[in-house]
Amino acid sequence: MKIAIMGYGVVGSGVGEIISSSQESLKKRCGEEIEIVSILDLRDFPDSSFKCFTKDFNDILSNDEIGLVVEVMGGTKPAYEFTKQLLLAGKHVVTSNKELVAKHGTELLKIAREKNINYLFEASVGGGIPIIRPLYSSLVSNELTDIIGILNGTTNYILTQMIKEGASFEEALAGAQANGYAEKDPTADVEGYDTCRKIAILTSLAFGKYVNSEDIETEGITSITLEDVEYAAEFGGVIKLVGMSKRVENGAFARVCPVILKKDHPLAGIDDVFNGILVKGEALGDVMFYGRGAGSLPTASAVVSDVIDIVKHKDTHIILGWTDGEEGYLKDPDEQSFRYYVRLCGSSDSASMCREGFNVITLDGEKYANEFAVFTPEMTGKEFNEFKRTELAGYDIRGCIRLVTE
Amino acid sequence: MKIAIMGYGVVGSGVGEIISSSQESLKKRCGEEIEIVSILDLRDFPDSSFKCFTKDFNDILSNDEIGLVVEVMGGTKPAYEFTKQLLLAGKHVVTSNKELVAKHGTELLKIAREKNINYLFEASVGGGIPIIRPLYSSLVSNELTDIIGILNGTTNYILTQMIKEGASFEEALAGAQANGYAEKDPTADVEGYDTCRKIAILTSLAFGKYVNSEDIETEGITSITLEDVEYAAEFGGVIKLVGMSKRVENGAFARVCPVILKKDHPLAGIDDVFNGILVKGEALGDVMFYGRGAGSLPTASAVVSDVIDIVKHKDTHIILGWTDGEEGYLKDPDEQSFRYYVRLCGSSDSASMCREGFNVITLDGEKYANEFAVFTPEMTGKEFNEFKRTELAGYDIRGCIRLVTE
Repeated sequence: MKIAIMGYGVVGSGVGEIISSSQESLKKRCGEEIEIVSILDLRDFPDSSFKCFTKDFNDILSNDEIGLVVEVMGGTKPAYEFTKQLLLAGKHVVTSNKELVAKHGTELLKIAREKNINYLFEASVGGGIPIIRPLYSSLVSNELTDIIGILNGTTNYILTQMIKEGASFEEALAGAQANGYAEKDPTADVEGYDTCRKIAILTSLAFGKYVNSEDIETEGITSITLEDVEYAAEFGGVIKLVGMSKRVENGAFARVCPVILKKDHPLAGIDDVFNGILVKGEALGDVMFYGRGAGSLPTASAVVSDVIDIVKHKDTHIILGWTDGEEGYLKDPDEQSFRYYVRLCGSSDSASMCREGFNVITLDGEKYANEFAVFTPEMTGKEFNEFKRTELAGYDIRGCIRLVTE
Repeated sequence: MKIAIMGYGVVGSGVGEIISSSQESLKKRCGEEIEIVSILDLRDFPDSSFKCFTKDFNDILSNDEIGLVVEVMGGTKPAYEFTKQLLLAGKHVVTSNKELVAKHGTELLKIAREKNINYLFEASVGGGIPIIRPLYSSLVSNELTDIIGILNGTTNYILTQMIKEGASFEEALAGAQANGYAEKDPTADVEGYDTCRKIAILTSLAFGKYVNSEDIETEGITSITLEDVEYAAEFGGVIKLVGMSKRVENGAFARVCPVILKKDHPLAGIDDVFNGILVKGEALGDVMFYGRGAGSLPTASAVVSDVIDIVKHKDTHIILGWTDGEEGYLKDPDEQSFRYYVRLCGSSDSASMCREGFNVITLDGEKYANEFAVFTPEMTGKEFNEFKRTELAGYDIRGCIRLVTE
């Protein structure tokens, strides 16, 4: 099988490295050799051991020998156009491009189905953690009901630094950038957009119907403070940024936001740059997947696993069970119920909140003198807004985070 | 697709329940209906909604309409003969029978390959946790190097009771039996045989070469005491029964034994009847799978996932990469290095053990008055035996457990 790679960045060069260094074991596993015959990148790599670089996409598109293309360029322009043309030309495509899959997955999968080829994207979520394939193969017999995942290593590193080292958000972000865990422009990570694309992909696969990431209410971690961390700890919890979705009648809820998890929650112990994804099914119970969610080689190894899967079963279209989206399928997020943590400052005391279903926490120390935190019972977003409008009217709200209790 | 079920116990009836209750979603996922047309069991089930019971295996074997058989009888007699005949007759077989896969997997997989059909066994390890399929699909691009897993829920429940509740082994076992987590005859669980079959299957798949479970050195948890639990806790660890294997040059190590894991090890927090499997690969880093390792519905859901996989790709033989075993492939377990915990009683004191690489722990309380524990540096089994023969000659050895440090 002759293949091409589009994009020779960290993932692309990792793919090249794994394929060229494991020729023998790949041949044993696939039944045939995998040969990289073309690499598209606008940059020059004079020192690379590969001598097949090109700057012209048409060299790949028009090369009839190439049966499979690895797209690891990122972004949608020109990746979307390139992928579409390759699939229409009957070439399999494997990608790590979560943005493209989240945005155009439905269309690209439809072309692959019509052409009896494959468009696979194991590497788009969770780096080397096998999570995409289990959703369309191992877990298919289950009516899956819930997905909740720590899907972004950068923000998990930042939150872990805040929780374990007492670093402020700004300090932790600077540390993440210094360690190469965060980009110079960290917006996509800290605002939750990266997590949002990933939960959109997981939800589309797990529940079988396309969910547009742009319709998912998304909140990042930029407003999380050390005080929030302290109240959460006193409550017996930790703050994590999660993507989550829940199947309900005729639809689903999906959301990205920071949440407080009790310490015995399976995701609570997932620290630093690690990712963890918890999947619940009716027959299945809880299953969790855990590992390093990013990095050149883990992500590249997920790409290569898709390449191998295709080479092993070349003439088979792998059925993913990801169908068209539907108006109204994604429900109003304000109708989903949560418990809420609210940090309050005000002249009146906390006595009125000390009633059934509520927890009130006060902390020692001067900086906590005029404030307290209340953990509400479960309420919908609408009920919570009403609660704020009436009972919290006299307070200054300094922080507000949902709780995940199951 | 018309299918048969052999064995209508907890798993078999779970398979029947899932398939009959999810007809519509199965049809959507597979592209065709799945119909149970025959169930083999020697018992009568007059109250069952299924009316297709038979006591005669030939009813299934000779029924040309049946394309796939679910074997959930357990044991090797008559499951081995039945499975072989079905595969030779060109029928796909899906099983949860770890004993049969561990013993005759190589032969049965070869027949399936020759007949261009499938013999799949996702349910044989880890209940509903998808671990088998990732090993032959998602993780194939990795040169996997290590597997370590808590693979038996019964023993994990017993050890958790000892660690968290201070129950003795006997009390915890009785509790497990009362809760239905342990059989009346718990030998296969507590002596590690069940774990042994599972690590044999995982190792055969992950490293690509058949490993006979009978060649794996296996030690259970019957000699673990509350004193061992205490010393481990003081050292910052917990005792878990694991199956583990490690790829080395031209072969592999494999072993089942109780080990002490430091509390920050990913498997250390896996408690009660849960299973967890940690897989390491060169490119991949660590990936962990976690979930309920047994139970009627989780296990049945894993069986059904294999059924679906076959129905979706009926004419494809799925390549597992499990090849014949090889003389000398499994290395002498005494050549693998571990740190050791040893609980010692004797007239001389612990001073001689207080040296580089050793940890000595003494506990308060009268019952610990004449004893102490030493944690050795890494040594091979041979070196450890020599250490016992020379330096520990003057002591009564009351407990001995390996440490897993990475």
